[in-house]
Amino acid sequence: MENKSYVVKMKGTGVHEKNTLNSVNANGLAGSGIQHKTVKDIAHPAKQKSCRQRWNIRASKMSINTLNPIRSIVDGMKLTPNPEKPMIALSIGDPTVFGNLPTDDKVLQAMKDAIDTHEYNGYAPSVGYQKSREVLANFYSCPEAPLKAEDVLLTSGCSQAIDLAITVLCNPGDNILIPCPGFSLYKTLAVSLGIQVRLYKLLPEKSWEIDVQHLESLIDNRTACLIVNNPSNPCGSVYSKEHLQDILSVASKRCLPILADEIYGDMVFPGCQFHSMASLSADVPVLACGGLAKRWLVPGWRMGWILIHDRNQCFGKEIRQGLVKLSQRILGACTIVQGALESILNDTPQEFYQRTISFLKSNSEICFSELSTIPGLTPVMPSGAMYLMVGIEMENFPEFEDDVQFTEHLVTEQSVFCLPATAFEYPNYFRIVVTVPEEMMVVACGRIREFCQRHYRPRSQESAELDH
Amino acid sequence: MENKSYVVKMKGTGVHEKNTLNSVNANGLAGSGIQHKTVKDIAHPAKQKSCRQRWNIRASKMSINTLNPIRSIVDGMKLTPNPEKPMIALSIGDPTVFGNLPTDDKVLQAMKDAIDTHEYNGYAPSVGYQKSREVLANFYSCPEAPLKAEDVLLTSGCSQAIDLAITVLCNPGDNILIPCPGFSLYKTLAVSLGIQVRLYKLLPEKSWEIDVQHLESLIDNRTACLIVNNPSNPCGSVYSKEHLQDILSVASKRCLPILADEIYGDMVFPGCQFHSMASLSADVPVLACGGLAKRWLVPGWRMGWILIHDRNQCFGKEIRQGLVKLSQRILGACTIVQGALESILNDTPQEFYQRTISFLKSNSEICFSELSTIPGLTPVMPSGAMYLMVGIEMENFPEFEDDVQFTEHLVTEQSVFCLPATAFEYPNYFRIVVTVPEEMMVVACGRIREFCQRHYRPRSQESAELDH
Repeated sequence: MENKSYVVKMKGTGVHEKNTLNSVNANGLAGSGIQHKTVKDIAHPAKQKSCRQRWNIRASKMSINTLNPIRSIVDGMKLTPNPEKPMIALSIGDPTVFGNLPTDDKVLQAMKDAIDTHEYNGYAPSVGYQKSREVLANFYSCPEAPLKAEDVLLTSGCSQAIDLAITVLCNPGDNILIPCPGFSLYKTLAVSLGIQVRLYKLLPEKSWEIDVQHLESLIDNRTACLIVNNPSNPCGSVYSKEHLQDILSVASKRCLPILADEIYGDMVFPGCQFHSMASLSADVPVLACGGLAKRWLVPGWRMGWILIHDRNQCFGKEIRQGLVKLSQRILGACTIVQGALESILNDTPQEFYQRTISFLKSNSEICFSELSTIPGLTPVMPSGAMYLMVGIEMENFPEFEDDVQFTEHLVTEQSVFCLPATAFEYPNYFRIVVTVPEEMMVVACGRIREFCQRHYRPRSQESAELDH
Repeated sequence: MENKSYVVKMKGTGVHEKNTLNSVNANGLAGSGIQHKTVKDIAHPAKQKSCRQRWNIRASKMSINTLNPIRSIVDGMKLTPNPEKPMIALSIGDPTVFGNLPTDDKVLQAMKDAIDTHEYNGYAPSVGYQKSREVLANFYSCPEAPLKAEDVLLTSGCSQAIDLAITVLCNPGDNILIPCPGFSLYKTLAVSLGIQVRLYKLLPEKSWEIDVQHLESLIDNRTACLIVNNPSNPCGSVYSKEHLQDILSVASKRCLPILADEIYGDMVFPGCQFHSMASLSADVPVLACGGLAKRWLVPGWRMGWILIHDRNQCFGKEIRQGLVKLSQRILGACTIVQGALESILNDTPQEFYQRTISFLKSNSEICFSELSTIPGLTPVMPSGAMYLMVGIEMENFPEFEDDVQFTEHLVTEQSVFCLPATAFEYPNYFRIVVTVPEEMMVVACGRIREFCQRHYRPRSQESAELDH
């Protein structure tokens, strides 16, 4: 059958024989008067010299510009634990690593049920199954910020949600406003796309509220998006209604859409309340990014979403369609997880969420109260999420240059690893992840105390000694 | 505790009070002599005017440049089936839609086992679990193209594998060579990244072999990558060893790395053999992209991979590190599927693969032999994958302008939908997906025959009539 002759209709010529002038025609060159030259010479008269003569494959600029500050800082550290003390890593933002915070059985059962239906093996629409989008819309809808299925896109983790949101709102040369200290991914994604980042200050003395005036001063006509991360990684802060309204009023005045990274949404300690950005926004359009990772304790499953909260058609069809188009590049979340979503959202018992939050609060309190009494350290008590930031009075630890050296030596001497906040563009702090088992947290705090006591040289005392 | 005072060390000023000159300093402006102005005026004297005064959010160029030709063509078609005939879609490249090609029970069991271990809920490394990479390396290793775990990256579907491979090899302004007809995603991804595409011709009369001379004529010094899709979507072609060697020799001469899209690898009909590009390459470095989607019939699970086959260190550390960095942007595949990979690859019975292939071959033969006897159509028999291309002698169907109109009317009259190959930049053909149940295929072919018989007006005859 391969000898069957076909009617071939292609632009340019049809059947090509090697070394006939057909290929010349295919290159748009006239075929007459040049029969003496070889076809190769004719087909690409000018190109020939400009082709590579040797291998020279270089990584693209985008890959070179994809920077992971955590990796580059951690990889540059000498992390040799004290062999006499077992290592305790307070650095890993993965709540599952110690086994003390398992996801709920209902969540696992939902996955197995989804597998058993045999209905979730094929391609889903690039924006996710309609049913799963509906379920999410219902789950997150509130009177102040109603959602329909078409307002929801399912993504491969919250990271892809943030990636799509940044990518649809910004062009190369634009700038975005990101928190400092802040989750490093915003910068990683933006810089790789040729988007400039401008860091607005968070104020530790105000429980990491945004310095709204500073934020506003950074806005210019190329500012395409304001990223607000609430509750916050690495700060564990949860913003009050009033503070969120202050932020919204700047965004409103400057006509700036908000990317609300709410992956830790509802992970707030008792006595504190989480307000979604969209629920407070009258006129500022919000892309709210979230996912199963933290609240349901399954970060590896890569189930994230974007909730489109438009206001007065500011996003309009254009941003919606842009998101849909971008979602078609590599598609989104695993269909089994999409299929399980309804049950995960609706059947997970309230006690599961409460248990997680109680644990995180209790561990935060233990850590905070321990570290508060250590001279030279200034922990900031979180109100949610799973992190706690600790300031280091560097001038009182003269042996160490910065937070990187400080945390490096903490590993060498005490086998406790905390991430230096230089990784969040915020030197002289370190971040503690409060998901470790309580006993481990207590031991770790004891070791941090021992370390600080050994190296603390209050400046005034030192000066006094020098004067003497 | 929130009133505790903290030592704040930040670049610029520390504590900010609204309407003090601190924010001026933060903007790098001198604080003296300007106290009479308001802070707002001072902080951004030039910027003020350039800020947006009204909402004007536009979708980014990248999102606008993310084009899906299949969607744009299909969405533009009038697809109103004949109400008297049930619709048969031969257009959907998803083998799971009709339920006649389920994945193997072992594959589903592997997923449930992975869930039950409770070990695959946390973050995996961005390139995938070491163990899963090892398993893949072993599975695809052969003496001519050995693989180690570090040569493997797990991705969110083969689409992300292709995206990362293109992104690491190409800069905006570079060009890549892609097959025509070819899978539309290559162009979608490249154009969205500002990379030019150049289409090299496939030759239907040679079972869709590449017109190697044409391919070579397209190469210039900005050509960064050659994409070869074997077995092919939409052609179902499987290249011989000799043809692959011809392609490799061009790539070798022009020092051009190859992106081998081998998602249909090993899905070849009995009597035919699949050769991976890398297994034949002595000196051309290859990024081979694949995944579970087609061979294991679970496209929704989004498990793909890149196999790095370097040669003489042409890729070297730079491309490897580039891929690793890019993988950190949004991470990759769902950890449950990663955890199940070992069992999926090693425990799926051979009969499962054979059953799928036998079915695809048998259905292809039915379709080919039916369509071969229809005047005006020229089907090309595939040797693998799950597609079959059919040429339309457009001049003999004078009622229709092109393949789009032809397939549109096929829906209107016969309720059979085939994708017009204009979607693959190859007009006057249409693509049939051969995964539909056999009975459906037979009925569909009968209807196509009826349709063609009704509209076929052989040109010579017509001319004769006119002459008469």
